[in-house]
Amino acid sequence: MAYELYYWPGIQGRGEFVRLALEQAGADYVDVGRGSKADGQGVPALTAFLEGDATTRAPFAPPFLKDGDVVVGQTAAILMHLGPKLKLTPKAEADRLWVHQIQLTIADLTAEAHDSHHPVGLSLYYEDQKKEAAKRSKEFRKQRIPKFLKWLETILAANPAGDQWLVGDKLTYADLSAFQVVQGLLYAFPKATKKTLKETPKLAALAVRVAEQPRIKAYLESDRRLPFNEEGIFRRYAELDS
Amino acid sequence: MAYELYYWPGIQGRGEFVRLALEQAGADYVDVGRGSKADGQGVPALTAFLEGDATTRAPFAPPFLKDGDVVVGQTAAILMHLGPKLKLTPKAEADRLWVHQIQLTIADLTAEAHDSHHPVGLSLYYEDQKKEAAKRSKEFRKQRIPKFLKWLETILAANPAGDQWLVGDKLTYADLSAFQVVQGLLYAFPKATKKTLKETPKLAALAVRVAEQPRIKAYLESDRRLPFNEEGIFRRYAELDS
Repeated sequence: MAYELYYWPGIQGRGEFVRLALEQAGADYVDVGRGSKADGQGVPALTAFLEGDATTRAPFAPPFLKDGDVVVGQTAAILMHLGPKLKLTPKAEADRLWVHQIQLTIADLTAEAHDSHHPVGLSLYYEDQKKEAAKRSKEFRKQRIPKFLKWLETILAANPAGDQWLVGDKLTYADLSAFQVVQGLLYAFPKATKKTLKETPKLAALAVRVAEQPRIKAYLESDRRLPFNEEGIFRRYAELDS
Repeated sequence: MAYELYYWPGIQGRGEFVRLALEQAGADYVDVGRGSKADGQGVPALTAFLEGDATTRAPFAPPFLKDGDVVVGQTAAILMHLGPKLKLTPKAEADRLWVHQIQLTIADLTAEAHDSHHPVGLSLYYEDQKKEAAKRSKEFRKQRIPKFLKWLETILAANPAGDQWLVGDKLTYADLSAFQVVQGLLYAFPKATKKTLKETPKLAALAVRVAEQPRIKAYLESDRRLPFNEEGIFRRYAELDS
């Protein structure tokens, strides 16, 4: 049975971390939020779960995944669930925990990237918090992006199996997510991110390596890959990157 | 061998979610950050790990746990690792995933609680972002606290095993964390939180139930439980709660 991914249509958002895993594995999946209401898909199918009408284990927010009887929310938990099934996580328990820990830290970076343009109100427009966003983005650019990306660089450098992948000698979902966060930061903060990536050459090379995986390459060229835009997590506002 | 918990001394912070699990299980553990340098403990022992001098898998930030050869960071990952060992998570895989998903959502709420007083700069003082904090806190009080706590209430109401615990018919680490986040919110936003708890009676009762667990009760009365203060995640600034 096909996996069902539930996420808001129109943006990559957090759903993209899950899409990349499904795409890399060549898994059969339905992107429900982007389907049509006539097929019982689209946004109403999402809200049925969020409102607890479709499960006793209602997720707090999209993305969530339906895999047979299991409904799981929280990006990192979805990837932890999919990891063994899609062969995107190592076999040893301690290694799986490490992959998950990296994923959770990438999730923290992603949340901070979001807050860079929405520091004082999720429910307000960017235009209503431009001044605050400028303040927060300055710290994000100068301190946080370097701190997170250098941490990933350190992991690659310290991997006993070599610096090709973050954990062990095979691609894991953490590599896919590292690629995605680097792409997102390059979109939102091109100047600051390029500057940091010069100091994190192993991470920069990892992002290229992921993009060259045949299935990821085909996906990125397909119309299943939505473009980044100013509705998503990573937004390009020139004034926040200078 | 005793578990070693590494966290900044002087605050409950995210380390407290781990402490509560260790305490509830009556586990043997060392709170390394609060130990003395003379014993090889204290803050220098933390920074050795963060700087990668003590492991090839350096955590991004405290808390982290050393369990024999395994070093694991990220609060939710630590609890996932400890859950089966401390018998604080169910046996079935799908149930464990659900406990973890709840934990991750509590982690999101915790991060938002922190950002309520530090919306524009982790590296700035609260005093330098009071205006922005007032703006963010208003939304946090009016929208986010109710949304998160009502989600927890819904989980209790929908639990097929009854409304005593969040998952199944036994206490899990998610219950301990729900208790902690309720305590933190009651400290930081007493007025707003009490108001919401009136609409979430099952969650309010859960928090009391956790506090009455014999080992938790003894812990809360001991000097191992640090008081909430204005250095931690949950801070009481009267102007943010009105």
